[in-house]
Amino acid sequence: MNGIGAHEVVIEGPDHTKDLADLSVEHLTQVLTAYRERVMDLHRDRRLRYVLIFKNHGAKAGATLEHTHTQLIATPIIPKILQEELDGSRRYFELKERCVFCDIVQQETAETNGRRMVLQSDRYVAIEPFAPRFPFETWILPRRHVDSYQSVSDPDEMAEFAGVLKETLTRLNRALERPPYNFVIHTAPVAEGELEYYHWHLEIMPQLTRVAGFEIGSGFYINPTPPEDAAQYLREVAVET
Amino acid sequence: MNGIGAHEVVIEGPDHTKDLADLSVEHLTQVLTAYRERVMDLHRDRRLRYVLIFKNHGAKAGATLEHTHTQLIATPIIPKILQEELDGSRRYFELKERCVFCDIVQQETAETNGRRMVLQSDRYVAIEPFAPRFPFETWILPRRHVDSYQSVSDPDEMAEFAGVLKETLTRLNRALERPPYNFVIHTAPVAEGELEYYHWHLEIMPQLTRVAGFEIGSGFYINPTPPEDAAQYLREVAVET
Repeated sequence: MNGIGAHEVVIEGPDHTKDLADLSVEHLTQVLTAYRERVMDLHRDRRLRYVLIFKNHGAKAGATLEHTHTQLIATPIIPKILQEELDGSRRYFELKERCVFCDIVQQETAETNGRRMVLQSDRYVAIEPFAPRFPFETWILPRRHVDSYQSVSDPDEMAEFAGVLKETLTRLNRALERPPYNFVIHTAPVAEGELEYYHWHLEIMPQLTRVAGFEIGSGFYINPTPPEDAAQYLREVAVET
Repeated sequence: MNGIGAHEVVIEGPDHTKDLADLSVEHLTQVLTAYRERVMDLHRDRRLRYVLIFKNHGAKAGATLEHTHTQLIATPIIPKILQEELDGSRRYFELKERCVFCDIVQQETAETNGRRMVLQSDRYVAIEPFAPRFPFETWILPRRHVDSYQSVSDPDEMAEFAGVLKETLTRLNRALERPPYNFVIHTAPVAEGELEYYHWHLEIMPQLTRVAGFEIGSGFYINPTPPEDAAQYLREVAVET
């Protein structure tokens, strides 16, 4: 491992008072496309093994800048969390010959009344995962099996992702009174080639509870909110769409 | 795995205004002995695989009660973090035929000027670890190779641990103006038998920075404070001993 890396900040618009959810779908599409372009450019440097795209929104979620922004940190190794997810999904694939994330999309769509479904479009689903670490943790997954965020090359596909992200954030904002949150894009490491067992997605984690001694000491998370309750609440909250 | 567990709160004294570091060494010895007795009693239930002993001190470290207290959570599985530490130290032992924590104690004692050493006694060392996740993260390790906290059966050994813990917390309080902190006792799972590759210790983590998107997404920690600087600061801060 080399002591090499990159850190970039994407400033999402000129207006200091607008959060990501306040941007138009067209504007948000441009932001999401900018993430993709920066990832692709950073990956021209072969020493960088992974580019983590993440957002800290609100001081309680660790944001040190108020103006809406997203960060990219490129590292010379695959992050621990992603490596664990890659290992887990590879084991699942070896066992079932199916992608675990495709199975999640399938199952959450078929689940009686879609009780962990927040919203869905032709190409994407937004769900509360079965075992969320945080109350109102929400994942957006593409229905199409594709391992990396960089593969979203179709502008319509990106615009649809922007629409689903905007509505998801708007529902979270309405339900939880504009909570602090983090989001992270989980995507395949570039050098690995196309991974049949991995499937990119976005994980949004509102910061409503505090990670403390139990979580730090165990790696387990205490979450008092069942995902089914959170999903119902997010579905039923009134938003203009 | 069964859905079984236990959660206990150790209230450390009758005085609402005194923190752990304010207790006398005699009093603190009783508190630390109480942890041990509760762990031993909980382990009579064979369904419990691990008892996590941890403290949240201050609201920013997740404490929901102001009165000084410690928590024990017993789980039917070995916590993820501990399993990773067990796996890592077993691999080290297989390679070197030595306990990694004994080597750490040895190395930090021998290190030029003991530059990551905070304080030491006959039986214990308090150090800043080589790659700390948090600024001023401090570990207390027994010099004697012993895998579990329950093995501290000698009252003098426990009293000496209390003295080292009190001075370490006092130095952190003085240096960082009574910071919020978490601590966690890392100890061997009981059912495993005596582990030659594991070595109990206490990890104290002041909460000065915020864990945010990068840490949640990567499992890596950004720490702006070199352990050598933190150790020097903690050694030099004036405390009455």
